[in-house]
Amino acid sequence: MKNTIGNEITITLFGESHGPAIGCVLDGLPSGFTIDMEHLSRSMDQRKAVGSISTGRHEADAVKFLSGVKNGVTEGTPAAILIENTNTRSSDYDALADLPRPGHADYSAQMRYSGYQDKAGGGHFSGRLTAPLVAAGDICRQMLDSKGITIGTHIQNLHGIEDDAFAETGLKEQLDALNSRQFAVLNEETGKRMIAGIEDARNHEDSVGGILETVILGLEPGIGEPEFDSIESRISQAMFSIPAVKGIAFGEGYGFAGMYGSEANDSFLMQDGKVVTRTNHNGGINGGISNGMPIVFTTVIKPTPSIARKQDTVNMKTLENAEIAIKGRHDPAIIHRARAVVDAMSAFVIADMLQSAHGRDWWKK
Amino acid sequence: MKNTIGNEITITLFGESHGPAIGCVLDGLPSGFTIDMEHLSRSMDQRKAVGSISTGRHEADAVKFLSGVKNGVTEGTPAAILIENTNTRSSDYDALADLPRPGHADYSAQMRYSGYQDKAGGGHFSGRLTAPLVAAGDICRQMLDSKGITIGTHIQNLHGIEDDAFAETGLKEQLDALNSRQFAVLNEETGKRMIAGIEDARNHEDSVGGILETVILGLEPGIGEPEFDSIESRISQAMFSIPAVKGIAFGEGYGFAGMYGSEANDSFLMQDGKVVTRTNHNGGINGGISNGMPIVFTTVIKPTPSIARKQDTVNMKTLENAEIAIKGRHDPAIIHRARAVVDAMSAFVIADMLQSAHGRDWWKK
Amino acid sequence: MKNTIGNEITITLFGESHGPAIGCVLDGLPSGFTIDMEHLSRSMDQRKAVGSISTGRHEADAVKFLSGVKNGVTEGTPAAILIENTNTRSSDYDALADLPRPGHADYSAQMRYSGYQDKAGGGHFSGRLTAPLVAAGDICRQMLDSKGITIGTHIQNLHGIEDDAFAETGLKEQLDALNSRQFAVLNEETGKRMIAGIEDARNHEDSVGGILETVILGLEPGIGEPEFDSIESRISQAMFSIPAVKGIAFGEGYGFAGMYGSEANDSFLMQDGKVVTRTNHNGGINGGISNGMPIVFTTVIKPTPSIARKQDTVNMKTLENAEIAIKGRHDPAIIHRARAVVDAMSAFVIADMLQSAHGRDWWKK
Amino acid sequence: MKNTIGNEITITLFGESHGPAIGCVLDGLPSGFTIDMEHLSRSMDQRKAVGSISTGRHEADAVKFLSGVKNGVTEGTPAAILIENTNTRSSDYDALADLPRPGHADYSAQMRYSGYQDKAGGGHFSGRLTAPLVAAGDICRQMLDSKGITIGTHIQNLHGIEDDAFAETGLKEQLDALNSRQFAVLNEETGKRMIAGIEDARNHEDSVGGILETVILGLEPGIGEPEFDSIESRISQAMFSIPAVKGIAFGEGYGFAGMYGSEANDSFLMQDGKVVTRTNHNGGINGGISNGMPIVFTTVIKPTPSIARKQDTVNMKTLENAEIAIKGRHDPAIIHRARAVVDAMSAFVIADMLQSAHGRDWWKK
Repeated sequence: MKNTIGNEITITLFGESHGPAIGCVLDGLPSGFTIDMEHLSRSMDQRKAVGSISTGRHEADAVKFLSGVKNGVTEGTPAAILIENTNTRSSDYDALADLPRPGHADYSAQMRYSGYQDKAGGGHFSGRLTAPLVAAGDICRQMLDSKGITIGTHIQNLHGIEDDAFAETGLKEQLDALNSRQFAVLNEETGKRMIAGIEDARNHEDSVGGILETVILGLEPGIGEPEFDSIESRISQAMFSIPAVKGIAFGEGYGFAGMYGSEANDSFLMQDGKVVTRTNHNGGINGGISNGMPIVFTTVIKPTPSIARKQDTVNMKTLENAEIAIKGRHDPAIIHRARAVVDAMSAFVIADMLQSAHGRDWWKK
Repeated sequence: MKNTIGNEITITLFGESHGPAIGCVLDGLPSGFTIDMEHLSRSMDQRKAVGSISTGRHEADAVKFLSGVKNGVTEGTPAAILIENTNTRSSDYDALADLPRPGHADYSAQMRYSGYQDKAGGGHFSGRLTAPLVAAGDICRQMLDSKGITIGTHIQNLHGIEDDAFAETGLKEQLDALNSRQFAVLNEETGKRMIAGIEDARNHEDSVGGILETVILGLEPGIGEPEFDSIESRISQAMFSIPAVKGIAFGEGYGFAGMYGSEANDSFLMQDGKVVTRTNHNGGINGGISNGMPIVFTTVIKPTPSIARKQDTVNMKTLENAEIAIKGRHDPAIIHRARAVVDAMSAFVIADMLQSAHGRDWWKK
Repeated sequence: MKNTIGNEITITLFGESHGPAIGCVLDGLPSGFTIDMEHLSRSMDQRKAVGSISTGRHEADAVKFLSGVKNGVTEGTPAAILIENTNTRSSDYDALADLPRPGHADYSAQMRYSGYQDKAGGGHFSGRLTAPLVAAGDICRQMLDSKGITIGTHIQNLHGIEDDAFAETGLKEQLDALNSRQFAVLNEETGKRMIAGIEDARNHEDSVGGILETVILGLEPGIGEPEFDSIESRISQAMFSIPAVKGIAFGEGYGFAGMYGSEANDSFLMQDGKVVTRTNHNGGINGGISNGMPIVFTTVIKPTPSIARKQDTVNMKTLENAEIAIKGRHDPAIIHRARAVVDAMSAFVIADMLQSAHGRDWWKK
Repeated sequence: MKNTIGNEITITLFGESHGPAIGCVLDGLPSGFTIDMEHLSRSMDQRKAVGSISTGRHEADAVKFLSGVKNGVTEGTPAAILIENTNTRSSDYDALADLPRPGHADYSAQMRYSGYQDKAGGGHFSGRLTAPLVAAGDICRQMLDSKGITIGTHIQNLHGIEDDAFAETGLKEQLDALNSRQFAVLNEETGKRMIAGIEDARNHEDSVGGILETVILGLEPGIGEPEFDSIESRISQAMFSIPAVKGIAFGEGYGFAGMYGSEANDSFLMQDGKVVTRTNHNGGINGGISNGMPIVFTTVIKPTPSIARKQDTVNMKTLENAEIAIKGRHDPAIIHRARAVVDAMSAFVIADMLQSAHGRDWWKK
C-alpha cells in the first residue's frame, strides 16, 4: 500500500498538479449518510487560496462524485471523488524541469521515480493533492458531528506571533467559532497581525510557517489500540501526509521535557458521575487509547518552500551547480490553508477508528 | 491489523508484563542473514534497567527464537521471538487493580477492553513490551549496518540539561561512539549531570523526561512514498508505538515556526560528483522521500508516570475518588532506556522500506 | 480494505454501471515502463461485447489515464484509470429497482447497503467493473511479457462442449495463438460449436457457463509464501473478484480426489541442468510457492444470471412474491469475455508477487 | 504481510515441525469472551492423528496461551497461542535434506529461502502448522455458535467413495452430528468403507485424497464485500492456506458448467416473512455477499504426498537425479484431519467479516 490510508474506511489518493484532474477513492463509508454539500464547500473554501496572502492560482475545486454517492447520500460503495484541474499552466514549470527547487520534493521524487514523474508544479507532490483529502475528510467530519464529536484547529503560532490559548470553558463554542472563520485564530486581532506578517514575507519574496493546534472534542474513552495503531500513531501518519508538516506533538508535547512526573500526570477524579482528569497534559490519550478528555495536538508547518528569491540548486541533467528563481504562483504561507487539511484528516482517522470499534453503523448510535 | 506493523517486514507484538512471556513475530525477513548475537545482547542491555537510575526489576531478557532462525541464521520464515518473564510479582499490583495510575494506560485500557485486560504492571501496555521490539529491530539494524547505514540516538535534553549538538564532521564516528555507550550522550560530562538529575528526581519520589535526537546516516535518496507512506509517516507511527513518546519532529522540527522560507530551504549543490544539500534543515526528507542527507528527528519522552508520591485517582469499581501511592518497582526516567527502542524501531522502518523498494535481497547489494 | 487488492502493486476499484464513469487506481507500478497502448486496446476488446453472442450494450471503453502515466510511460505515481459510461440507459432498470434478479447481487447488495446502493444494471456489482481490471492487469501483463512470462486462457468447457487439451510441447506458441484470438479456444472447430451453443441458449432466452483453463508460463521457482499468501490464495482471491466465477482449482484440481499419492506426486528430475518435474499435476505450485513449472488452474464460470425468461422473485419493498422478466441488454454467456479478466488479474497477482520478491526494478532484470 | 491473515481479527502463524514450538498470534479478538476449553480440545482432537489411518507421530498438542487470555476469558489484547513440539525426531529427515520429496514444498521452499529454511519434516510447511490454526479458529467458532451460526464439514468423497448428501431439512442437526464425530461423514457405513480405503492405501504404501463439503448455517444476509473481499475471496484465501487443498468451489461449483442460467438461478420467495431462495445453487452468496441462505462450498484435498514407495527426485546439492523412499511417519490420508482446519478457518473468516461489519461487540448481539 503506497497511496492508500486507513483500515475500515480508506482513502486512495491520485493526481498531479497539472494533469486533467486530481482525486481520491474514499472507500468503506457506511451507506445512507446524507452529505451536507454546503458544509463540504465551506471546508473546501477554507483550504482554498484566497486574497493577498495566497497563491495567484485560483481553482473552482468543484467536487464531483463519480460513484458511491447518489443524490447526496452515501451508497456504501467506493466514492470516487474528482476535482478537475482547470487552471493548469504547466509551461510555467518547463524551465524548471531539471532544477530541483530547494525544500521541495523535486529532487527526492527524481530519485524515487528515476525522472519519470510529472514535474510540473510538483506533480503528485503538489499541495493541490490535499484538496481531495479535504473533500474525503469532510464527509467523515460530518458523520462525527452527528455523533457530537467536534474538531477544530487554530493557528497557535505564525512565525512567532502567538494566538490566545483556548479558554478552559466553552471549548465547543470556541471550536464552532474557529470553524466559521476563514483565517483560523481565536483572537482576531492577533489574526490581523499574522496576516500582516504573511504579507510582509511576500513583500520580501519570502515565506513563513507556524504551528497549528487541533482539538477533537467528544470522543468516547476506549478508542485506539496499544502500540502500532495508537491514536498518536494513526493521527501522526495522517498528518505527515500533509506537505509541509514536519512535526507533531500531543498534549504538552515538547513541553514534557521540562516537567516532572508529578506535574505531567493527569490525576483522575469523578465529575458528574463520570471519570475525568483534572488536567489534560496527555492530550486525551493514555497508552495510545482515548481517555475521554479532548484530544489535543499541535503540528508544525514549515515555511512554504516556493519563494521568488534566487536560490542555489543543481541541474539534475548536467550535474552542475545552478541557480533558480521560482516564477509560477505560490503562497507566502500555507498554514492558514493547511488547517482545513488537518481538520479533515483528523476526522478521517477518528471515523475510521470508530468504525473499526463499532462497525458500519457507528455513526447512527 | 492492531498489533502488527510493517509491509514487507512485519512485527506482531504480544505479551503482558506479568504473564509467562512476552514476544513478537518478526516476519518477512530475508533468509541467510547471520545474526550477531552479541550485538543483539548489547542492544538488549542498552534497553535494560541498570544501576541507581532504573527500576528495581531486573530481568535476564534472554532472547529465544522459537522459529525462523537456525544456528543464528535467518531462515526467511517467521521468526517467533520469546522473552520469558522471570521476575514477575503481580501481587504488587493487586491492590491497584481498580485504581488507575495517573499518566498510565490503566483507565483507557479499562474502557477499551471492558476490564478484561491483564492489569498487573500495565499488562500489554507495559514498557516491558519494548524488549521484543528491540530484539526485532536490532536484527534489522544489523542488516542496515551491512549496507553502510548507521543509526544512533543521543539524549539531547534531559529535563532541561542539554547535550552537545552533533559536530558537523565525523558523524559516523559520533554515532559509533553513542552506540558504544550505555548512557547515550555526546558529552559525557553532561551525561553525569543528567544522571545526577535523574537520581535527584528519584530522591524526590518524582520522575523526569527529555528529548532524544536520532540520526540515520547513509540512506540512499529515493526511499519512501508521497503522503501516507512518507518516511515521516512511517517513522512516526513506529515511534508513537513506544510508551512515553508524545511528540516527534524532523529536521528543524518546531524550530521551523520561527524561520523564513529563505532560511528553511536546503539549497542543493554538487559535491564530489554527488547532489547534496548545503544545510539539512529538512532532516534528509523532502516530500516524504529521502534526499540522501542524514535523516534527523527528535522524539520527546514524557516523565515516567509511575512515581512514589501519593496521587489523586478514582476507584473504577465504586466510581469514587481515591488516592494512590504506587509501590512496585519503577524508573525515575526511561529516556536513557527508550533510546534503544527508538534505534531499533527506526531500523525496522528503514529496513522494511528498503525491502519494499529493492526486494528480499536488498541487504546484499 | 474493501475495494483494494494487492501488496506492492494495488488496484482500488470504483464505479457503477450507469454512473458517469468507472475506473480504478493502479498504484505501486514501477516508473519508466512504456505501455503498449495497442496491446491494451486488444485486451480491452477481448473483454468487450461482440456479435451475436454478447450483450447489445456497446461501449467504446476508451481507457483514459488521469494520472500516473505520461506520454504512455508509467510515472511510478498512482495511475488513475477512467472509462466513461457512454451508453447508459438506467431507465431500463427503474422497473426492477425493488425486484432482485435471481442469481444477481441485487438482494444481497440491498442487505449490505440498506438499499442505498445504485441499483441500475447492478451498480457497483456490474460486470462492467471488470473493464478497469482488464486495463490495470494488462499493464502488468505487458511487464511480465518483457520478462518472458506468458499468460493465456482457453475455454476448456462450454456447457459440456470441450476444447482440446494443451499439447505437451509448444506451450508458448499455443498461448500466443490463444492471445491472438477473440474467442479463446485451442481448436477453432470446437469454438464454432461453442458459439452455436451460446446462440442456441440465447434463442431459448437462456444462458450457459463453462470452465476456463489458464496457464502462466515462465514464472521462476521460489515465488509465493507459505499459507496465507500462497500463489493459490492470492490468485483465488483475485479470481473470485470476477463476477460469475464460482470455483477455482489448481493442477489436477478436483481430479485429485480420484488419484493415489503415487499418481499425484510430480517426481523431480534434471533436464538441461535444471530441476523440473516429470508431470505437472500440482500446477506448478508446491506449498503455495512456484516450482518453476507452468502455473495451471481452472475457473468455473456460472451461466449469466440475466435471462429473458420470466422468473420468480420478491418485491423487496412490499415483501410479497413477484415475477420478473429482465429486459435490458445482456449476454447469453460471458465466459468468452471473462477470459480477458482472468488473464489480466492473473498478471496483476504475479506482478505484485514479483515486485514483492525483487523490488521495483523486478521487470528490468 | 506474509504469514498474517485477516482484517479486524488476525492470525500470524509461526513455527516449524521440529522446532521447540509452533503457534500463532490471534489478535483483535473482542474482550470478555469465555473460551470453552473442552470445545477447544475436541476440535484439536479432530485434527489430531488417530488410529491406524494416521501418522505414527502423536503429539499432546496442548494449547498454551502466553497472553491475551486470562482465566479462560479473552482480554482483547493479542492472544499468543503456543503448542510445544514434544515428539520431534528431526534426525529422521537428515538424510532427506537435499532430496526434495515429490508433491511437497521442499524444492519450492529451497528456491524461496535459498536453502536456509528448516528442512526437517517440511519445517514451516508442515501440516503441523495447522494445529495453531485450529486453536485460533475454534475460538472464533465458539463466538459464532453463541450467535447461532453453525459450521460443519463432511467428507463428501474419499477416493471415489461418496458420502450421502445433506438432507434438505434438519441441517442444524446434521451439522451437530458431524461435529460430534471424529470421522466426519453423514453416513457412518460409508465412513467405514472410507476408512477401509485409507487402510488399503497405506497397505500399498500409498495415499488417497478426496473432497470436503462445508456448510455455514445461520449467517445473516449482507455480509461481505463486492469483488476483492467477497466471501468467496476471503474463504478461498483461508482454505488455500491449508496444505493439500488444491481447489475450492461454491454452491454447484464446477457443476455450473453444465447448467443453463434458468437452472442455475436461485429464485427468491417469501417464507415466514423472510426472503429466501427456493434453491441454493449459489451457495448462499451473490455478488460476493451473503444472501441469508447457508454458505456451501467444497474443497478438494490431494492425496498426502508422503508415501513410503520409492520415488524419483533430484539431489539439490549435486544436481543429479536421485531416488527417495520416505521413512519418517506419515498419513495415508489427511482429509479426515483437514476437516477440523477447514471448519476452524471458515469460522475465522466469518468472525472477522462480522467484526468488520458490526464492531467489537458483534458476538453479543
